[in-house]
Amino acid sequence: MIPPLYWNAEGHVDLLDQTQLPVAEVWLEIKTVEAMAEAIRSLRVRGAPAIGIAAAYGVVLALRDDPAQPQNAVQTAIDALTTTRPTAVNLFYALDRMQAVLDTHPDATTGYLRMALLAEATAIEAEDQASGRRLGEHGVPLFQEGMGVLTHCHAGGVATSGYGTALAPLLQAHVQGIGLHVFVDETRPLMQGSRITAWELGKAGVPATLITDSMAAHVMQQGKVQAVIVGADRIAANGDVANKIGTYALAVLADAHGIPFYVAAPLSTIDFDTSTGEGIVIEERKAQEVTHGFGRQTAPDGVQVYNPAFDVTPARLVTAIITEHGIAEAPYIDTFEGWRERQQNQPSLR
Amino acid sequence: MIPPLYWNAEGHVDLLDQTQLPVAEVWLEIKTVEAMAEAIRSLRVRGAPAIGIAAAYGVVLALRDDPAQPQNAVQTAIDALTTTRPTAVNLFYALDRMQAVLDTHPDATTGYLRMALLAEATAIEAEDQASGRRLGEHGVPLFQEGMGVLTHCHAGGVATSGYGTALAPLLQAHVQGIGLHVFVDETRPLMQGSRITAWELGKAGVPATLITDSMAAHVMQQGKVQAVIVGADRIAANGDVANKIGTYALAVLADAHGIPFYVAAPLSTIDFDTSTGEGIVIEERKAQEVTHGFGRQTAPDGVQVYNPAFDVTPARLVTAIITEHGIAEAPYIDTFEGWRERQQNQPSLR
Repeated sequence: MIPPLYWNAEGHVDLLDQTQLPVAEVWLEIKTVEAMAEAIRSLRVRGAPAIGIAAAYGVVLALRDDPAQPQNAVQTAIDALTTTRPTAVNLFYALDRMQAVLDTHPDATTGYLRMALLAEATAIEAEDQASGRRLGEHGVPLFQEGMGVLTHCHAGGVATSGYGTALAPLLQAHVQGIGLHVFVDETRPLMQGSRITAWELGKAGVPATLITDSMAAHVMQQGKVQAVIVGADRIAANGDVANKIGTYALAVLADAHGIPFYVAAPLSTIDFDTSTGEGIVIEERKAQEVTHGFGRQTAPDGVQVYNPAFDVTPARLVTAIITEHGIAEAPYIDTFEGWRERQQNQPSLR
Repeated sequence: MIPPLYWNAEGHVDLLDQTQLPVAEVWLEIKTVEAMAEAIRSLRVRGAPAIGIAAAYGVVLALRDDPAQPQNAVQTAIDALTTTRPTAVNLFYALDRMQAVLDTHPDATTGYLRMALLAEATAIEAEDQASGRRLGEHGVPLFQEGMGVLTHCHAGGVATSGYGTALAPLLQAHVQGIGLHVFVDETRPLMQGSRITAWELGKAGVPATLITDSMAAHVMQQGKVQAVIVGADRIAANGDVANKIGTYALAVLADAHGIPFYVAAPLSTIDFDTSTGEGIVIEERKAQEVTHGFGRQTAPDGVQVYNPAFDVTPARLVTAIITEHGIAEAPYIDTFEGWRERQQNQPSLR
């Protein structure tokens, strides 16, 4: 288990600066809401569940310096953290829960409010850990000895509370002695695959080969890949999946090669208010990520760049969606709603 | 038309230093055989046709300083230039033609020999230009006003005598006032798309948008692309196409989106001795191109890397192949053989 951050008993967050991976493993002391907002915005912490957990602890930091009006300070923190990233539904889910704690304590002292908020942030993190463990267990049976598995971007430990989503079944299979070989897309422009997934798999001792995104079709053509598994930033109620740019390409390529395409995500990633992928807003990021890849200019001055951070894979290309509740297949909405109902009746499973 | 070099009337070659693209457009004055050999060896001029033309003009430079024994000086130049690059067939083809000129003028004066060599070098360049122009003209009717066209890697002017292959129809369409928008894959790992294709299209004033390779499927899904066109490194007799890694992915994606997939290449790229793509050996290159692609390490130490330079696209995914002789569709072999026969009967078309 590789967590992206820890709540430090001294009242701050120790956060792994993922932008410095894989060259350096640097832990930052995050002591203010602003520092946490910056860390989220700059992708020092990234991955939808990790962002939610980071934001939740970020809210607690608003009370670190004993503000005169604690409720106002917390509200300001929630508002500021809400604007850090536009797409990750876990961010809003976590902040909604922190908002509910604030709303139920309009007159609490700073000390009491801090305790309540910290308990809620800790619960969000613990629930994600339990969910990651269950998700991994549900996914393991999809993978058999000797399979090549392709993954994209990073949906591992540091993107969540430590277990990951797409990597969770692969890591659990590895622990159970099932020999898999993972092909890791480097994932331009920000190289989360080569920087983080390859690093995590290396730490866990899982055999892996790094490729550029443009090589995925070629390794499928050569029969080296028997399954694709990715995470998700947001899943519409019908099973359309928003995930890192390049995911949709893999789904089309897997379909063309007769390879199953799996998505692994906690139920919190499913946005029941968004009926299809068409309703998902796709964040566009700065041209510099493409033109100045890692400190060196690789495109002419003034070139026009299109840099969407995500794409949407239609449910018809998704073989199955693995969650902490089990494995869903099309039509997704029925299974999702059953899980939601069960979750609402068993709050401990949320 | 963007040529990689010009013969300067003052008796030297002005050569674009492609190693400095896209950050700087530096033109070198190449005045000696040694300087030309260095430029070829250091990839300041690259692309098989461009290397041949550079070497031919390089031979002429042997006579710049009126050597006492002009025939000896030219022979020394040909021998030196022959060793600059090991595989580009155009290099040997061009130097063979310069050798023939030398052999037919054993007693010519320096002035006369220089004139004859310069005429041959100019002819080699002019034939490549004519072939590029014809390829472009044949391709233009495939593109209509308002189309979005996706290309991969670099198959443009500075790799040839100025017209390029995949870019030739697009540049000619632009000159004819047909409004196209080109999406340029950056083309990891070596970034020929962002470094050179985006630069050439910018110089030519062709509207273009740079994307990462992983975004190609997404722009197709959004209806922004109505055609894909790429070059080729080698085409088997049945129409299977070996080209820069990532090309096969685009062919599968284009097929899935109902978008035509075109390949542009001179007839000399068709390898009649290789019946299908299975016979094409794929070069594997160093891991560092993937792990240290931007002057900075982007993957963990010791990671395993697979770095094939090319992939093979089966003919069934290729809508048409555009050459200087016209447009071929499946079954390719019949058309290819007709062209070869015509070319053998009309040497001026070579």
